[in-house]
Amino acid sequence: MVSKQDAGRATISEIALEAGVSVPTVSKVLNGHAHVAAETRARVEEIIARRDYARRPAKRSKKAGLIDLVFPGLGSEWALEIIEGVERVAQEAGYGTVVSSLSLDGSRIRPWLANLAERKSDGLILAVYELDPKQIRRIRSLGIPVVLIDPVGQPGPDLMTVGAANWEGAYSATEHLLQLGHKRIGMIGGREDLQCSSAREDGYLAALRRAGIRMDSALMVPGDFSTEAGEAGTRQLLSLTEPPTAIFTGNDDQALGAYRAARAAGLRVPDDLSVIGFDDIPAAEWVEPPLTTIRQPVVQMAETATRALLRHLEGDEELPQRIELGTELVVRGSTAGAPKG
Amino acid sequence: MVSKQDAGRATISEIALEAGVSVPTVSKVLNGHAHVAAETRARVEEIIARRDYARRPAKRSKKAGLIDLVFPGLGSEWALEIIEGVERVAQEAGYGTVVSSLSLDGSRIRPWLANLAERKSDGLILAVYELDPKQIRRIRSLGIPVVLIDPVGQPGPDLMTVGAANWEGAYSATEHLLQLGHKRIGMIGGREDLQCSSAREDGYLAALRRAGIRMDSALMVPGDFSTEAGEAGTRQLLSLTEPPTAIFTGNDDQALGAYRAARAAGLRVPDDLSVIGFDDIPAAEWVEPPLTTIRQPVVQMAETATRALLRHLEGDEELPQRIELGTELVVRGSTAGAPKG
Repeated sequence: MVSKQDAGRATISEIALEAGVSVPTVSKVLNGHAHVAAETRARVEEIIARRDYARRPAKRSKKAGLIDLVFPGLGSEWALEIIEGVERVAQEAGYGTVVSSLSLDGSRIRPWLANLAERKSDGLILAVYELDPKQIRRIRSLGIPVVLIDPVGQPGPDLMTVGAANWEGAYSATEHLLQLGHKRIGMIGGREDLQCSSAREDGYLAALRRAGIRMDSALMVPGDFSTEAGEAGTRQLLSLTEPPTAIFTGNDDQALGAYRAARAAGLRVPDDLSVIGFDDIPAAEWVEPPLTTIRQPVVQMAETATRALLRHLEGDEELPQRIELGTELVVRGSTAGAPKG
Repeated sequence: MVSKQDAGRATISEIALEAGVSVPTVSKVLNGHAHVAAETRARVEEIIARRDYARRPAKRSKKAGLIDLVFPGLGSEWALEIIEGVERVAQEAGYGTVVSSLSLDGSRIRPWLANLAERKSDGLILAVYELDPKQIRRIRSLGIPVVLIDPVGQPGPDLMTVGAANWEGAYSATEHLLQLGHKRIGMIGGREDLQCSSAREDGYLAALRRAGIRMDSALMVPGDFSTEAGEAGTRQLLSLTEPPTAIFTGNDDQALGAYRAARAAGLRVPDDLSVIGFDDIPAAEWVEPPLTTIRQPVVQMAETATRALLRHLEGDEELPQRIELGTELVVRGSTAGAPKG
């Protein structure tokens, strides 16, 4: 029998030798990677266990105990909920959460990378970023695992992302208006370059189709997810000969603009015009009337991203490619039955 | 002349010997502490400069590059603004900001302290905590500099704090109502155990006194800074034989309760009843009508606290005892001239 002391000194090479496999294969087993044949994995695991290879302590001693959470700006409505979700899961696992606000193009990226290299970080969670391939390469060159929390943009195929089911959310927003008896339902689009905009438009169209309502292209106006675009879009929709009785505004900021345009036109929400948003930003609760909307599960998205990252750090599994979480219809005061006449 | 190489090896003891002072005195000068006679300081500084003592690199090499920012909970309205202010200043100085949500009484404090000890931290910023002497001792025992950002509570005398000028803010809230012609102005108090509550009450009373208005104790009702207390307090004030035409609600949450009570009583804000809050929470902008309030400069409080901490870390100065930042009257839609009659 091998003594404890000797076992403590067992190297990966010795384990590989004894198992008759390559060093990278042992490494894969140690780090919990897939792509190792079950029989090989079992043999290597058995030797590791018998030789009492100090897997966890060896990994642990190298860890910084920190996860970095990075935003393009903390002004975002999402920021606090994301911090909350990440911090809760990280703290439970004994990791600190370093929060930074950073433009990945800007002048601050260099000193930030220098600071990161000096103090070390175990993993990186990027939130609300739209990344180009160059930025993705730069981030991957850090050599630490990265996940992306993505309530708006559409990531490249290279990073693990956690997002919301946009199509499904838009479908239920439109369905809610249909159930209230609305037949002419307007939609204000989102930023064209974001894939979530297409998904939301498709969800809206699918719900109409399913209800047997013919699409009227005059009822779909472009937007860019800003309050101003919501105001302009609503003005345009209300000026139609046959204006809509309800508007799905694509996101909550645009819904706030729709409120403004409705007020300016002397219309009451929801009596004369129903409005439904998407996102459930904090203001949605406070506006008058409180906004009916589709909630993105931002806290859960943050928790899910962090759990996936931690499982990967602990060597238990590979990072998945994409996780989509379901949305939720939140009925408040801005939607009502279609006005008669 | 001493060669560069020798100078690099100059120890604090050698500098103390040459200056004819004790080692702790040299240390104080190196770390920028007060309480060193000007003449002594000059002599020591001169020797340090001549011997080219490597002060900064020596300090820097020991730094973790991290500041810890800790909240009792991230749900607070203040949290995001505080994170924003701290992170901005810290990042500019090359420090990462570790954000944690933590009850200092709870079960999580032990693992958190263990994590902190393992990964090191250069300084601690506590936000929105009300600390008892035992907690203060526990925190001081970490042996790292601590500052407190304090928009509500009143700290013990042992930690540096950054807060807002509560008396002055309440004074200008009341003055604003007086200038609009109100004579019967109600006030809903805050939590009795917080010193900011007394300061706000005193500011209210001082403004009335200055305007020559006799205090009517029926117009001052207790509260606890919650929406519910604001609603109950307003109901009580409106039930008086001679109800107020304006209410200073002590904070914004109570103002939201006042809105509710006014609506229930069939009164319009501001036409029938003016309401002014204190804090300027995000919801203040979104409620209908938008709330007139006294803004606490939360971002600046966070920046000021971080700058003081960083100056201390860089050895430039002692932490001051308390810094109070001025408030600002933000006039929105909830205050108007006193109704006639």
